[in-house]
Amino acid sequence: MLKLDFHPAGRHFLQIPGPSPVPDRILRAMSYPTIDHRGPEFGALGLKVLDGIKKIFKTQQPVVIYPASGTGAWEAALVNTLSPGDTVLMFETGHFATLWKKMAESLGLKPEFLGLPGVEGWRRGVQSQMIEERLRADTERKIKAVCVVHNETSTGVTSDIAAVRRAIDAADHPALFLVDTISGLASADYRHDEWGVDVTVSGSQKGLMLPPGISFNAVSKKALAASKEAKLPRSFWGWDEIIEMNKGGYWPYTPNTNLLYGLNEALEMITDEGLDNVFARHNRLAEACRRAVRAWGLEIQCEDPAVYSPVLTGVMTPQGIDADAVRKVIYERFDMSLGTGLGKMKGRMFRIGHLGDCNDLTLMATLAGCEMGLQLAGVPLAGSGLPAAMAFLASEAKAATLKAAA
Amino acid sequence: MLKLDFHPAGRHFLQIPGPSPVPDRILRAMSYPTIDHRGPEFGALGLKVLDGIKKIFKTQQPVVIYPASGTGAWEAALVNTLSPGDTVLMFETGHFATLWKKMAESLGLKPEFLGLPGVEGWRRGVQSQMIEERLRADTERKIKAVCVVHNETSTGVTSDIAAVRRAIDAADHPALFLVDTISGLASADYRHDEWGVDVTVSGSQKGLMLPPGISFNAVSKKALAASKEAKLPRSFWGWDEIIEMNKGGYWPYTPNTNLLYGLNEALEMITDEGLDNVFARHNRLAEACRRAVRAWGLEIQCEDPAVYSPVLTGVMTPQGIDADAVRKVIYERFDMSLGTGLGKMKGRMFRIGHLGDCNDLTLMATLAGCEMGLQLAGVPLAGSGLPAAMAFLASEAKAATLKAAA
Amino acid sequence: MLKLDFHPAGRHFLQIPGPSPVPDRILRAMSYPTIDHRGPEFGALGLKVLDGIKKIFKTQQPVVIYPASGTGAWEAALVNTLSPGDTVLMFETGHFATLWKKMAESLGLKPEFLGLPGVEGWRRGVQSQMIEERLRADTERKIKAVCVVHNETSTGVTSDIAAVRRAIDAADHPALFLVDTISGLASADYRHDEWGVDVTVSGSQKGLMLPPGISFNAVSKKALAASKEAKLPRSFWGWDEIIEMNKGGYWPYTPNTNLLYGLNEALEMITDEGLDNVFARHNRLAEACRRAVRAWGLEIQCEDPAVYSPVLTGVMTPQGIDADAVRKVIYERFDMSLGTGLGKMKGRMFRIGHLGDCNDLTLMATLAGCEMGLQLAGVPLAGSGLPAAMAFLASEAKAATLKAAA
Amino acid sequence: MLKLDFHPAGRHFLQIPGPSPVPDRILRAMSYPTIDHRGPEFGALGLKVLDGIKKIFKTQQPVVIYPASGTGAWEAALVNTLSPGDTVLMFETGHFATLWKKMAESLGLKPEFLGLPGVEGWRRGVQSQMIEERLRADTERKIKAVCVVHNETSTGVTSDIAAVRRAIDAADHPALFLVDTISGLASADYRHDEWGVDVTVSGSQKGLMLPPGISFNAVSKKALAASKEAKLPRSFWGWDEIIEMNKGGYWPYTPNTNLLYGLNEALEMITDEGLDNVFARHNRLAEACRRAVRAWGLEIQCEDPAVYSPVLTGVMTPQGIDADAVRKVIYERFDMSLGTGLGKMKGRMFRIGHLGDCNDLTLMATLAGCEMGLQLAGVPLAGSGLPAAMAFLASEAKAATLKAAA
Repeated sequence: MLKLDFHPAGRHFLQIPGPSPVPDRILRAMSYPTIDHRGPEFGALGLKVLDGIKKIFKTQQPVVIYPASGTGAWEAALVNTLSPGDTVLMFETGHFATLWKKMAESLGLKPEFLGLPGVEGWRRGVQSQMIEERLRADTERKIKAVCVVHNETSTGVTSDIAAVRRAIDAADHPALFLVDTISGLASADYRHDEWGVDVTVSGSQKGLMLPPGISFNAVSKKALAASKEAKLPRSFWGWDEIIEMNKGGYWPYTPNTNLLYGLNEALEMITDEGLDNVFARHNRLAEACRRAVRAWGLEIQCEDPAVYSPVLTGVMTPQGIDADAVRKVIYERFDMSLGTGLGKMKGRMFRIGHLGDCNDLTLMATLAGCEMGLQLAGVPLAGSGLPAAMAFLASEAKAATLKAAA
Repeated sequence: MLKLDFHPAGRHFLQIPGPSPVPDRILRAMSYPTIDHRGPEFGALGLKVLDGIKKIFKTQQPVVIYPASGTGAWEAALVNTLSPGDTVLMFETGHFATLWKKMAESLGLKPEFLGLPGVEGWRRGVQSQMIEERLRADTERKIKAVCVVHNETSTGVTSDIAAVRRAIDAADHPALFLVDTISGLASADYRHDEWGVDVTVSGSQKGLMLPPGISFNAVSKKALAASKEAKLPRSFWGWDEIIEMNKGGYWPYTPNTNLLYGLNEALEMITDEGLDNVFARHNRLAEACRRAVRAWGLEIQCEDPAVYSPVLTGVMTPQGIDADAVRKVIYERFDMSLGTGLGKMKGRMFRIGHLGDCNDLTLMATLAGCEMGLQLAGVPLAGSGLPAAMAFLASEAKAATLKAAA
Repeated sequence: MLKLDFHPAGRHFLQIPGPSPVPDRILRAMSYPTIDHRGPEFGALGLKVLDGIKKIFKTQQPVVIYPASGTGAWEAALVNTLSPGDTVLMFETGHFATLWKKMAESLGLKPEFLGLPGVEGWRRGVQSQMIEERLRADTERKIKAVCVVHNETSTGVTSDIAAVRRAIDAADHPALFLVDTISGLASADYRHDEWGVDVTVSGSQKGLMLPPGISFNAVSKKALAASKEAKLPRSFWGWDEIIEMNKGGYWPYTPNTNLLYGLNEALEMITDEGLDNVFARHNRLAEACRRAVRAWGLEIQCEDPAVYSPVLTGVMTPQGIDADAVRKVIYERFDMSLGTGLGKMKGRMFRIGHLGDCNDLTLMATLAGCEMGLQLAGVPLAGSGLPAAMAFLASEAKAATLKAAA
Repeated sequence: MLKLDFHPAGRHFLQIPGPSPVPDRILRAMSYPTIDHRGPEFGALGLKVLDGIKKIFKTQQPVVIYPASGTGAWEAALVNTLSPGDTVLMFETGHFATLWKKMAESLGLKPEFLGLPGVEGWRRGVQSQMIEERLRADTERKIKAVCVVHNETSTGVTSDIAAVRRAIDAADHPALFLVDTISGLASADYRHDEWGVDVTVSGSQKGLMLPPGISFNAVSKKALAASKEAKLPRSFWGWDEIIEMNKGGYWPYTPNTNLLYGLNEALEMITDEGLDNVFARHNRLAEACRRAVRAWGLEIQCEDPAVYSPVLTGVMTPQGIDADAVRKVIYERFDMSLGTGLGKMKGRMFRIGHLGDCNDLTLMATLAGCEMGLQLAGVPLAGSGLPAAMAFLASEAKAATLKAAA
């Protein structure tokens, strides 16, 4: 019999940038008995989570919840709004932007992939002026949608979505605006309505602290209108029937009841903490993490401080050091999982997740594991990163104490 | 705060034909900590469940597991094997067969919908000779696939899949054979390889006793070959990359880790009981249920004893009695959920689920709730159904005792 | 490895008169993380459960909660109030009254054991006039305490505690009044203050629906005063320090934190249902059970309808039938546990528990298991008990419907 | 409604020296359904845990398991072996030794309390030569038992029990030898048989990683013989009946079934890791902790390196610094619980627990919380403790890597 409790004594530290650790509160909520998805209690649950999730997306418009993982919600955004052969403008921010582009091709769309040369684009955010220029040049309005990734999980860059909106507006271009914030939602500030996004794609297993298995499309009026004309075949992902049934709190097909219990609990946890406090906590941990990386003398993957991710930090290993060898040591000796380098960054970086159910001491444990692992793997460090991180966290705690006393 | 424990004192009886009650063992397994889906333990888990699930489908060929509910697996079966405009032959066994046909239309296929007239087809199984005739007439081989539902959840009819296979063979027709056993798997005997099925579609929330959220395509070599030529756009549902990554126990995108923990536990439970014992238990409970229905003097929805479902029993209410009013009384007074009449049968029947984590006494409780509810709703009964059910169950128990002693 | 999920498919029916089935809600609450029992949150929890439990005992006076099972609370009641060699008057209602008497002897007390002759006392409740007579005869006031069992778990008799109080008063005797309602609390009406009980002993694993592990002493002012003079050695059980520390919600030694989480949840469940509704439900199930027993033509252990227990029903098997053989068949064939005959009733009866997290359909399942098991064991029955039970439950449900509509 | 999930985002760090954090595995095991404590499965469970626990005590003799917390097991050790007025020799190692002495007085025993003057005895272990001298002087053999605490939870001192045994033997004194290892068991090496202990007292909520609620007496033949003559009144705590019933895996009264499930799981976890590996891990974490304390320039409460505790480390705050104020800052700002100074050490120290389900990174998080909290509370530190702790842990990890490769 395979034993599912794989790990040795003490808690495993799951510090990958998602799936993030699922809090016990959510696991407990997920263990409520499955109920009739056509019964009255289910309707009450459905209405509650459908309403609550809107606040997280900062939208007044419908949010569609799929009983499928985040990759499915990518597909849903495309097939509901586009037709075979449509041109879509995508921006290469990293591995996940690349995968989304590949998906667009598979579905019969024609993606144009803008980006900076080499790995440069993987170390900076979306360049909105490049998008603006390309849209201005598209005088025939062939481009039907602009697709960008908000928080690029493969690098640790959180792009400026409002700037992309301004670029589209400046070009006075009618393209739809599709944004993936699978790993950003509920960790980094996000404003579906204010930023004029037409479809926002997200998932459950990151800032929402749920296991993978449900995913989201927040849908603007413009996107809904576009879906009436879109010709890509669709059934499971079709918005219309879902939005119609959602009015009563139900779904046209069997929803993922137990994950919706978890979502309900997650929404309560986030509301109790306060969404802005959640963002501030993520920013604080990210800054502490970066201070440790700098004290080690290592390079942060993201080169532009304006777009540092609050969700994860990419750490580049020195030339000649295989980042995956470092990860392996840390995994075997300190029972901690870190994210691997993906695509163009394979072997050259590791990723530290500090999202979701994470606090100051969890981060300190994480940094200790990294530092000891780097040492064991023979990486020369400029100094210990922990005092640097602690100095920042302690000063933040002091400020919070003074504020509470005031 | 919405309280998720909706129900009053004592356990709610969830006797709908799925989602079926999730055993505590499985809920516990689902609460194991989410692990890195790229780490070594995940690979071990993946290989184990991918191997185990084959035994349930009785196949040596790949079974694709989607992090999506069963309706998605319907779509996957179609988009992996077919091209826009393809003709598919489907058979109207009930509401779910009708929904699958509707999906085929949405995806740009041309379904032909065979069936008996009126509600007649909803009370009998697939008529394989009708399929054979239609295939023989298709001299141009325009029909690319034959699609049937094994266990029709809306009625309580379990069709003879081997007979359909023989019909296709008798017509010497090259069409693919696609079967939905979403509600049949692990409750009714099913043989993907022996019956020559090309794609079998199933889900987690029925005989496998899991919450909804993962679903399956068992895939024959012929289906895999067809997928190389199929032109319907697909990405999330694409078999190729999944089957390739599955070799190591991984998935191309984030899998539903916690439901896979649950699947692992379910497979152990089924293996411990023995698959044949599971089927025998379902048949025993179904027969006891039907004896009670007959003792009440009510009609069983399925008119052909050869295709009675071991999963659920559809009970028709007398003329003038709204079956949903009966269900409401039972729900409110006896804290039990029954399935509603769907589509053509709306208001004319209710459905008793006796699948998954169900035993003799659970069934007796269920029948007691039905009988008391029918009385409260003013339905005239020929007699008490419980002694009839008990006589059968006691005789079966006696036989088991004698067998154990022998 | 011993597998703890011992049972086959479907839920085991634990219908012994305690430990009763623990609802999932309570198991979930018990899985909250253990906290510092000296920290501020613990104090809040402590104050809440200490206050809530008083409502269940219907007292304004302290209720001491021990991190020990019910037998310990028996000892606590004696050692806190009595001195070596003290005479105590106890009444033989059954096996547990006998065990309590035996404990008193072990502790160096001198119990006098009143009772009806033979098994007669085991089929009737406490005879308060016998107590009154004995107390009147005790002109030297040698009797320091009167000890009776409220709900005798071994027989299914719930004695009239108010009548015993009246008997003590009528005799104008200063003895303390000690009552065991381990299996009665939160199932049968109980009034510590109104009935003038000095120490009420109870436990967690019956009507409170918790696992075993915590137990209670509700303590009157008179009992507290007596404890100042009592000479039996005590430390762990000593009330003083506990009551003092309880003022802040704490305990002098490590409390059973996770069971207190469960207690908090149980109190919420009982409050939500309403204590009177809880009693009404127990009475309804008990009456339905007795009607089935009568329809079988079997004898109810309790001969006096005035003291039928709402918690359990003792069923006597005909001469020559070993009740434990019946239990074994039911256990093996129908996966249900029933209580055995204890002490003088060994082999002559079995006990059906219908307490705690139990509802109409659970009871019907239980009765079906009994009836089929009796048949398999060769016990001749006058008829089926299920229609009789259902007729009663349905009429009660009808009355509830009418009441709700009014 | 009181919400039981008191804490903010991220996991609370419960670093008190017990109750220690309960691993999810154990919480899950504790949620198995309560079964009939008189049924066959219970007997199998009982036999298994009764056998397994012996290995932890390193004994071949009976271990009695009480459904009561550790304080009860203290009482059990005394009342089973001693008679009113008996003299017992106890040694003042700290707060818990003092409480046990107080209990002996409450029970009518005459404890003599040996110890070093002032707080000196609280910073060193048991002085076995003092015991030997006292026993030699007891020519009338009035001393019936020698009672010492193995791991003194209030200070962080683990006394040399074998040396006490040698002292008793050297004095050729017949006194029983009673040892409390409530907080030492399964964290520090302990040998009931080899060290000739007559009664070893322990509990569940420390090294065994369970919630509080069950406790233990390991009992030698000599202790059993003594219990036949001992005159202190007892019933609940009486060994005889329990040991007799334990032969079949049962208890004379209702056991704490769900905690026994947890115990079974804990025994599997400890066996899987290996008891010696468990001890080595505790020693490693304790040494790393002490290195941090020294780097801070603070004093370790235990002055004798030979008896440093592997379970906890007592840290003394400088003159003028209230240790509880430090704890409060850490609790409020970093969501971590530390142990308070008890008795003579009130306000002068805090206690860091590093026992049970604890690993390298948990310890690093703990030390980071302490260090930041000390800074916020204005305690001047000689330097950062984290690099010192990390240097030790990394060197140990390196050694483990080399050993694994060899």
